[in-house]
Amino acid sequence: MEFLVPFDGREPKSRLASVLAADERRELATALLSDVLGAFERTPHEPHVLSTVPIDRPVPTTVDERPLTDAVNAALEDATLPIGVLAGDLPLLTPESICRLAATDGDVVIAPGLGGGTNGLVVRHPDFSVDYHGASCLDHRSIAERRGATVVEFDSRRVATDLDEPTDFVEVLLHGNGKTAAWLRDAGFRLSIDEVGGRVDVDRSTQPPE
Amino acid sequence: MEFLVPFDGREPKSRLASVLAADERRELATALLSDVLGAFERTPHEPHVLSTVPIDRPVPTTVDERPLTDAVNAALEDATLPIGVLAGDLPLLTPESICRLAATDGDVVIAPGLGGGTNGLVVRHPDFSVDYHGASCLDHRSIAERRGATVVEFDSRRVATDLDEPTDFVEVLLHGNGKTAAWLRDAGFRLSIDEVGGRVDVDRSTQPPE
Repeated sequence: MEFLVPFDGREPKSRLASVLAADERRELATALLSDVLGAFERTPHEPHVLSTVPIDRPVPTTVDERPLTDAVNAALEDATLPIGVLAGDLPLLTPESICRLAATDGDVVIAPGLGGGTNGLVVRHPDFSVDYHGASCLDHRSIAERRGATVVEFDSRRVATDLDEPTDFVEVLLHGNGKTAAWLRDAGFRLSIDEVGGRVDVDRSTQPPE
Repeated sequence: MEFLVPFDGREPKSRLASVLAADERRELATALLSDVLGAFERTPHEPHVLSTVPIDRPVPTTVDERPLTDAVNAALEDATLPIGVLAGDLPLLTPESICRLAATDGDVVIAPGLGGGTNGLVVRHPDFSVDYHGASCLDHRSIAERRGATVVEFDSRRVATDLDEPTDFVEVLLHGNGKTAAWLRDAGFRLSIDEVGGRVDVDRSTQPPE
Protein backbone atom coordinates (compact mmCIF):
# COMPACT_ATOMS: atom_id res chain seq x y z
CA MET A 1 0.00 0.00 0.00
CA GLU A 2 1.18 3.53 -0.70
CA PHE A 3 1.37 5.80 2.38
CA LEU A 4 1.43 9.56 2.21
CA VAL A 5 3.96 10.86 4.76
CA PRO A 6 3.33 14.55 5.49
CA PHE A 7 6.48 16.43 6.51
CA ASP A 8 6.85 20.07 7.43
CA GLY A 9 10.42 21.17 6.86
CA ARG A 10 9.84 24.92 7.08
CA GLU A 11 9.30 25.77 10.72
CA PRO A 12 8.82 22.36 12.25
CA LYS A 13 8.03 21.57 15.86
CA SER A 14 7.14 25.10 16.95
CA ARG A 15 5.65 23.74 20.20
CA LEU A 16 9.17 22.68 21.19
CA ALA A 17 10.49 26.25 20.95
CA SER A 18 10.67 26.51 24.74
CA VAL A 19 13.32 23.79 24.91
CA LEU A 20 14.96 23.67 21.46
CA ALA A 21 16.42 26.33 19.19
CA ALA A 22 15.13 26.62 15.61
CA ASP A 23 18.07 24.76 14.05
CA GLU A 24 17.71 22.01 16.65
CA ARG A 25 14.03 21.66 15.81
CA ARG A 26 14.88 21.27 12.14
CA GLU A 27 17.47 18.61 12.98
CA LEU A 28 14.95 16.80 15.13
CA ALA A 29 12.33 16.89 12.37
CA THR A 30 14.90 15.43 9.98
CA ALA A 31 15.69 12.61 12.43
CA LEU A 32 11.97 11.90 12.84
CA LEU A 33 11.46 11.63 9.08
CA SER A 34 14.46 9.28 8.89
CA ASP A 35 12.95 7.04 11.53
CA VAL A 36 9.60 6.92 9.70
CA LEU A 37 11.20 6.17 6.33
CA GLY A 38 13.50 3.62 7.98
CA ALA A 39 10.53 1.74 9.40
CA PHE A 40 8.99 1.56 5.91
CA GLU A 41 12.19 -0.01 4.53
CA ARG A 42 11.41 -3.22 6.36
CA THR A 43 7.82 -3.43 5.02
CA PRO A 44 6.28 -4.07 1.59
CA HIS A 45 4.59 -0.65 1.78
CA GLU A 46 5.79 2.48 -0.04
CA PRO A 47 6.12 5.90 1.58
CA HIS A 48 5.37 8.96 -0.54
CA VAL A 49 6.56 12.08 1.24
CA LEU A 50 4.33 15.13 1.06
CA SER A 51 6.71 17.92 2.03
CA THR A 52 6.39 21.67 2.40
CA VAL A 53 9.99 22.05 1.20
CA PRO A 54 12.21 20.16 -1.27
CA ILE A 55 13.98 17.26 0.45
CA ASP A 56 16.72 14.87 -0.60
CA ARG A 57 15.43 11.39 0.18
CA PRO A 58 15.37 8.33 -2.08
CA VAL A 59 11.57 8.04 -2.01
CA PRO A 60 8.79 9.57 -4.13
CA THR A 61 8.18 13.11 -2.91
CA THR A 62 5.61 15.76 -3.71
CA VAL A 63 6.36 19.31 -2.60
CA ASP A 64 3.21 21.18 -1.61
CA GLU A 65 3.58 24.39 0.35
CA ARG A 66 -0.05 24.54 1.41
CA PRO A 67 -1.22 23.74 4.93
CA LEU A 68 -1.42 20.07 5.89
CA THR A 69 -5.16 19.64 5.36
CA ASP A 70 -5.10 21.12 1.85
CA ALA A 71 -2.01 19.19 0.80
CA VAL A 72 -3.32 15.83 2.03
CA ASN A 73 -6.75 16.38 0.48
CA ALA A 74 -5.17 17.24 -2.88
CA ALA A 75 -3.08 14.07 -2.71
CA LEU A 76 -6.10 11.97 -1.72
CA GLU A 77 -8.03 13.27 -4.72
CA ASP A 78 -5.28 12.14 -7.07
CA ALA A 79 -4.67 8.83 -5.31
CA THR A 80 -5.56 5.29 -6.23
CA LEU A 81 -7.37 3.71 -3.28
CA PRO A 82 -6.60 2.20 -0.85
CA ILE A 83 -4.03 4.66 0.40
CA GLY A 84 -2.53 5.23 3.82
CA VAL A 85 -1.35 8.35 5.61
CA LEU A 86 1.29 8.26 8.36
CA ALA A 87 2.68 11.39 9.95
CA GLY A 88 6.36 12.08 9.32
CA ASP A 89 7.06 12.65 13.03
CA LEU A 90 6.44 9.28 14.67
CA PRO A 91 9.60 8.37 16.59
CA LEU A 92 8.43 4.92 17.70
CA LEU A 93 6.99 3.71 14.41
CA THR A 94 7.91 0.09 13.63
CA PRO A 95 7.53 -2.10 10.53
CA GLU A 96 5.06 -4.21 12.54
CA SER A 97 2.84 -1.24 13.33
CA ILE A 98 2.83 -0.12 9.68
CA CYS A 99 1.89 -3.61 8.49
CA ARG A 100 -0.80 -4.02 11.14
CA LEU A 101 -2.30 -0.65 10.14
CA ALA A 102 -2.28 -1.53 6.44
CA ALA A 103 -3.96 -4.87 7.23
CA THR A 104 -6.77 -3.34 9.30
CA ASP A 105 -10.11 -3.53 7.49
CA GLY A 106 -12.48 -0.59 7.25
CA ASP A 107 -13.45 2.08 4.73
CA VAL A 108 -11.61 4.56 6.92
CA VAL A 109 -9.14 3.35 9.55
CA ILE A 110 -8.15 6.04 12.06
CA ALA A 111 -5.04 5.82 14.23
CA PRO A 112 -5.45 8.55 16.87
CA GLY A 113 -2.47 10.41 18.17
CA LEU A 114 -2.16 11.17 21.86
CA GLY A 115 -3.96 14.42 22.56
CA GLY A 116 -6.62 14.19 19.88
CA GLY A 117 -4.67 14.33 16.63
CA THR A 118 -4.70 11.81 13.80
CA ASN A 119 -1.34 10.13 13.27
CA GLY A 120 -2.40 7.48 10.78
CA LEU A 121 -5.17 6.73 8.32
CA VAL A 122 -6.08 4.11 5.79
CA VAL A 123 -8.58 5.40 3.25
CA ARG A 124 -10.63 2.99 1.13
CA HIS A 125 -13.64 5.27 0.54
CA PRO A 126 -13.53 7.79 -2.35
CA ASP A 127 -15.50 10.53 -0.58
CA PHE A 128 -13.38 10.81 2.57
CA SER A 129 -11.36 13.94 3.16
CA VAL A 130 -9.21 15.16 6.04
CA ASP A 131 -9.40 18.12 8.41
CA TYR A 132 -6.41 18.28 10.71
CA HIS A 133 -7.56 21.22 12.83
CA GLY A 134 -8.53 20.74 16.48
CA ALA A 135 -9.30 17.24 17.78
CA SER A 136 -8.96 15.75 14.32
CA CYS A 137 -9.44 12.13 15.39
CA LEU A 138 -13.02 13.03 16.36
CA ASP A 139 -13.54 15.14 13.24
CA HIS A 140 -12.26 12.38 10.96
CA ARG A 141 -14.71 9.95 12.49
CA SER A 142 -17.57 12.41 11.86
CA ILE A 143 -16.47 13.13 8.29
CA ALA A 144 -16.27 9.42 7.49
CA GLU A 145 -19.66 8.66 9.02
CA ARG A 146 -21.31 11.57 7.21
CA ARG A 147 -19.99 10.19 3.92
CA GLY A 148 -21.30 6.70 4.58
CA ALA A 149 -17.94 5.11 5.31
CA THR A 150 -17.35 2.46 7.96
CA VAL A 151 -14.87 3.67 10.57
CA VAL A 152 -12.41 1.45 12.44
CA GLU A 153 -10.06 2.67 15.15
CA PHE A 154 -6.46 1.46 15.00
CA ASP A 155 -5.06 0.84 18.46
CA SER A 156 -1.30 1.46 18.62
CA ARG A 157 0.79 3.27 21.21
CA ARG A 158 3.66 3.44 18.73
CA VAL A 159 1.60 5.16 16.05
CA ALA A 160 -0.10 7.34 18.69
CA THR A 161 3.21 8.75 19.91
CA ASP A 162 4.36 11.83 18.06
CA LEU A 163 6.76 14.52 19.18
CA ASP A 164 5.02 17.84 19.68
CA GLU A 165 5.67 18.76 23.29
CA PRO A 166 8.68 18.40 25.60
CA THR A 167 6.77 15.81 27.64
CA ASP A 168 6.78 13.54 24.57
CA PHE A 169 10.56 13.17 24.94
CA VAL A 170 9.96 10.67 27.75
CA GLU A 171 8.39 8.13 25.40
CA VAL A 172 11.20 8.46 22.86
CA LEU A 173 13.93 8.03 25.46
CA LEU A 174 12.09 5.06 27.01
CA HIS A 175 11.25 3.17 23.83
CA GLY A 176 13.09 4.69 20.87
CA ASN A 177 16.17 3.17 19.30
CA GLY A 178 16.37 5.21 16.12
CA LYS A 179 17.80 8.50 14.99
CA THR A 180 15.36 10.61 17.01
CA ALA A 181 16.28 8.95 20.29
CA ALA A 182 19.97 9.23 19.37
CA TRP A 183 19.55 12.93 18.55
CA LEU A 184 17.86 13.62 21.88
CA ARG A 185 20.57 11.75 23.77
CA ASP A 186 23.32 13.58 21.85
CA ALA A 187 21.59 16.85 22.72
CA GLY A 188 21.87 15.95 26.40
CA PHE A 189 18.35 14.78 27.20
CA ARG A 190 18.20 12.00 29.76
CA LEU A 191 15.46 10.16 31.60
CA SER A 192 15.07 11.10 35.23
CA ILE A 193 13.49 8.22 37.08
CA ASP A 194 11.87 8.64 40.48
CA GLU A 195 12.02 5.09 41.83
CA VAL A 196 9.60 5.80 44.68
CA GLY A 197 6.98 8.09 43.15
CA GLY A 198 6.85 6.22 39.88
CA ARG A 199 7.29 9.30 37.71
CA VAL A 200 9.64 9.41 34.77
CA ASP A 201 10.74 12.83 33.55
CA VAL A 202 13.39 14.24 31.26
CA ASP A 203 16.38 16.43 32.15
CA ARG A 204 18.82 18.20 29.86
CA SER A 205 22.45 18.27 30.82
CA THR A 206 23.41 21.08 28.44
CA GLN A 207 21.64 24.23 27.42
CA PRO A 208 20.41 24.70 23.85
CA PRO A 209 22.50 27.12 21.79
CA GLU A 210 21.06 30.62 21.45
CA MET B 1 -6.90 -16.77 30.53
CA GLU B 2 -7.02 -15.49 34.09
CA PHE B 3 -5.93 -11.87 34.54
CA LEU B 4 -4.86 -10.41 37.85
CA VAL B 5 -6.35 -6.91 38.17
CA PRO B 6 -4.49 -4.92 40.84
CA PHE B 7 -6.65 -2.29 42.52
CA ASP B 8 -5.70 0.17 45.24
CA GLY B 9 -8.80 1.24 47.13
CA ARG B 10 -7.05 2.84 50.09
CA GLU B 11 -5.60 6.12 48.92
CA PRO B 12 -5.94 5.84 45.19
CA LYS B 13 -4.76 8.35 42.60
CA SER B 14 -2.66 10.49 44.91
CA ARG B 15 -1.08 12.22 41.88
CA LEU B 16 -4.52 13.72 41.15
CA ALA B 17 -4.69 15.42 44.55
CA SER B 18 -4.07 18.82 42.96
CA VAL B 19 -7.35 18.63 41.04
CA LEU B 20 -9.55 16.13 42.94
CA ALA B 21 -10.52 15.79 46.60
CA ALA B 22 -9.88 12.46 48.36
CA ASP B 23 -13.48 11.24 48.07
CA GLU B 24 -13.52 12.19 44.38
CA ARG B 25 -10.35 10.21 43.82
CA ARG B 26 -11.95 7.17 45.44
CA GLU B 27 -15.04 7.56 43.25
CA LEU B 28 -12.86 7.86 40.19
CA ALA B 29 -10.89 4.73 41.14
CA THR B 30 -14.18 2.85 41.54
CA ALA B 31 -15.33 4.00 38.08
CA LEU B 32 -12.02 2.90 36.59
CA LEU B 33 -12.32 -0.57 38.11
CA SER B 34 -15.87 -0.81 36.75
CA ASP B 35 -14.67 0.02 33.26
CA VAL B 36 -11.92 -2.60 33.44
CA LEU B 37 -14.26 -5.32 34.76
CA GLY B 38 -16.90 -4.27 32.21
CA ALA B 39 -14.45 -4.77 29.35
CA PHE B 40 -13.71 -8.30 30.62
CA GLU B 41 -17.42 -9.16 30.55
CA ARG B 42 -17.36 -9.21 26.78
CA THR B 43 -14.34 -11.53 26.59
CA PRO B 44 -13.71 -15.20 27.44
CA HIS B 45 -11.06 -14.10 29.95
CA GLU B 46 -11.53 -13.97 33.72
CA PRO B 47 -10.48 -11.04 35.90
CA HIS B 48 -9.22 -11.79 39.41
CA VAL B 49 -9.05 -8.59 41.43
CA LEU B 50 -6.05 -8.13 43.69
CA SER B 51 -7.23 -5.41 46.03
CA THR B 52 -5.70 -3.59 48.98
CA VAL B 53 -9.17 -3.35 50.58
CA PRO B 54 -12.27 -5.57 50.59
CA ILE B 55 -14.50 -4.77 47.60
CA ASP B 56 -17.99 -5.82 46.60
CA ARG B 57 -17.72 -7.04 43.02
CA PRO B 58 -19.03 -10.27 41.49
CA VAL B 59 -15.57 -11.52 40.51
CA PRO B 60 -12.89 -13.54 42.34
CA THR B 61 -11.00 -11.19 44.63
CA THR B 62 -7.93 -11.54 46.80
CA VAL B 63 -7.33 -8.87 49.43
CA ASP B 64 -3.63 -8.20 49.92
CA GLU B 65 -2.60 -5.05 51.77
CA ARG B 66 1.00 -5.21 50.71
CA PRO B 67 2.52 -2.91 48.09
CA LEU B 68 1.72 -3.70 44.46
CA THR B 69 4.98 -5.50 43.65
CA ASP B 70 4.74 -7.85 46.64
CA ALA B 71 1.08 -8.60 46.08
CA VAL B 72 1.48 -9.39 42.38
CA ASN B 73 4.56 -11.54 42.97
CA ALA B 74 2.74 -13.54 45.63
CA ALA B 75 -0.17 -14.08 43.25
CA LEU B 76 2.18 -15.07 40.41
CA GLU B 77 3.84 -17.67 42.64
CA ASP B 78 0.47 -19.29 43.34
CA ALA B 79 -0.78 -19.00 39.75
CA THR B 80 -1.22 -21.57 37.03
CA LEU B 81 0.52 -20.29 33.90
CA PRO B 82 -0.21 -18.61 31.57
CA ILE B 83 -1.63 -15.72 33.55
CA GLY B 84 -2.21 -12.10 32.64
CA VAL B 85 -2.03 -8.88 34.62
CA LEU B 86 -3.99 -5.76 33.69
CA ALA B 87 -4.04 -2.65 35.85
CA GLY B 88 -7.38 -1.75 37.42
CA ASP B 89 -7.17 1.86 36.21
CA LEU B 90 -7.33 1.65 32.42
CA PRO B 91 -10.21 3.88 31.30
CA LEU B 92 -9.97 3.01 27.59
CA LEU B 93 -9.62 -0.77 27.91
CA THR B 94 -11.73 -2.68 25.39
CA PRO B 95 -12.63 -6.35 24.96
CA GLU B 96 -10.61 -6.30 21.73
CA SER B 97 -7.48 -5.06 23.46
CA ILE B 98 -7.79 -7.70 26.20
CA CYS B 99 -8.22 -10.47 23.63
CA ARG B 100 -5.33 -9.22 21.49
CA LEU B 101 -3.08 -9.11 24.57
CA ALA B 102 -4.06 -12.64 25.63
CA ALA B 103 -3.38 -13.89 22.08
CA THR B 104 0.11 -12.36 21.85
CA ASP B 105 2.82 -15.00 21.94
CA GLY B 106 5.90 -14.72 24.14
CA ASP B 107 7.18 -16.02 27.47
CA VAL B 108 6.62 -12.54 28.85
CA VAL B 109 4.43 -10.05 26.99
CA ILE B 110 4.81 -6.47 28.24
CA ALA B 111 2.23 -3.74 27.56
CA PRO B 112 3.94 -0.47 28.52
CA GLY B 113 1.98 2.36 30.02
CA LEU B 114 2.61 5.91 28.91
CA GLY B 115 5.42 7.33 31.01
CA GLY B 116 7.32 4.11 31.63
CA GLY B 117 4.96 2.01 33.70
CA THR B 118 3.67 -1.47 32.94
CA ASN B 119 -0.08 -1.60 32.40
CA GLY B 120 -0.37 -5.16 31.17
CA LEU B 121 1.53 -8.44 31.21
CA VAL B 122 1.11 -11.98 30.05
CA VAL B 123 3.38 -14.38 31.92
CA ARG B 124 4.16 -17.82 30.53
CA HIS B 125 7.57 -18.30 32.21
CA PRO B 126 7.73 -19.66 35.77
CA ASP B 127 10.73 -17.59 36.88
CA PHE B 128 9.42 -14.15 35.96
CA SER B 129 8.59 -11.69 38.73
CA VAL B 130 7.50 -8.07 38.74
CA ASP B 131 9.04 -4.86 40.07
CA TYR B 132 6.72 -1.90 39.64
CA HIS B 133 9.11 0.79 40.88
CA GLY B 134 10.51 3.39 38.51
CA ALA B 135 10.39 2.79 34.75
CA SER B 136 8.97 -0.68 35.24
CA CYS B 137 8.49 -1.46 31.54
CA LEU B 138 12.29 -1.34 31.17
CA ASP B 139 12.85 -3.27 34.40
CA HIS B 140 10.39 -5.98 33.41
CA ARG B 141 12.21 -6.47 30.13
CA SER B 142 15.52 -6.85 32.01
CA ILE B 143 14.06 -9.24 34.56
CA ALA B 144 12.56 -11.44 31.83
CA GLU B 145 15.78 -11.51 29.81
CA ARG B 146 17.89 -12.33 32.87
CA ARG B 147 15.64 -15.30 33.56
CA GLY B 148 15.88 -16.61 30.00
CA ALA B 149 12.39 -15.64 28.93
CA THR B 150 11.51 -14.31 25.48
CA VAL B 151 10.05 -10.81 25.69
CA VAL B 152 7.42 -9.40 23.34
CA GLU B 153 6.10 -5.84 23.50
CA PHE B 154 2.35 -5.37 23.20
CA ASP B 155 1.49 -2.24 21.24
CA SER B 156 -1.80 -0.69 22.39
CA ARG B 157 -2.70 2.92 23.06
CA ARG B 158 -5.80 1.78 24.95
CA VAL B 159 -3.84 -0.42 27.34
CA ALA B 160 -1.09 2.22 27.59
CA THR B 161 -3.51 4.89 28.81
CA ASP B 162 -3.97 4.96 32.56
CA LEU B 163 -5.16 7.81 34.72
CA ASP B 164 -2.42 9.09 36.98
CA GLU B 165 -2.08 12.76 36.11
CA PRO B 166 -4.58 15.51 35.25
CA THR B 167 -3.21 15.56 31.68
CA ASP B 168 -4.50 12.00 31.26
CA PHE B 169 -8.07 13.32 31.47
CA VAL B 170 -7.78 14.48 27.86
CA GLU B 171 -7.53 10.92 26.55
CA VAL B 172 -10.51 9.76 28.59
CA LEU B 173 -12.71 12.62 27.46
CA LEU B 174 -11.63 12.13 23.83
CA HIS B 175 -12.02 8.36 23.62
CA GLY B 176 -13.80 7.05 26.71
CA ASN B 177 -17.43 6.02 26.74
CA GLY B 178 -17.59 4.23 30.09
CA LYS B 179 -18.11 5.10 33.72
CA THR B 180 -14.79 6.97 34.06
CA ALA B 181 -15.58 9.34 31.21
CA ALA B 182 -19.10 9.81 32.59
CA TRP B 183 -17.71 10.54 36.07
CA LEU B 184 -15.30 13.15 34.71
CA ARG B 185 -18.07 14.81 32.68
CA ASP B 186 -20.42 14.80 35.70
CA ALA B 187 -17.62 16.39 37.74
CA GLY B 188 -17.49 19.24 35.23
CA PHE B 189 -14.43 18.33 33.19
CA ARG B 190 -14.66 19.29 29.53
CA LEU B 191 -12.36 19.23 26.54
CA SER B 192 -11.01 22.61 25.52
CA ILE B 193 -10.09 22.45 21.85
CA ASP B 194 -7.79 25.02 20.24
CA GLU B 195 -8.77 24.73 16.58
CA VAL B 196 -5.77 26.70 15.36
CA GLY B 197 -2.90 25.55 17.54
CA GLY B 198 -3.97 21.94 17.55
CA ARG B 199 -3.83 21.53 21.30
CA VAL B 200 -6.55 19.81 23.28
CA ASP B 201 -6.75 20.55 27.01
CA VAL B 202 -9.21 20.02 29.83
CA ASP B 203 -11.16 22.64 31.80
CA ARG B 204 -13.28 22.17 34.89
CA SER B 205 -16.46 24.16 35.19
CA THR B 206 -16.91 23.61 38.93
CA GLN B 207 -14.45 23.54 41.80
CA PRO B 208 -13.79 20.30 43.71
CA PRO B 209 -15.38 20.17 47.16
CA GLU B 210 -13.04 20.84 50.08
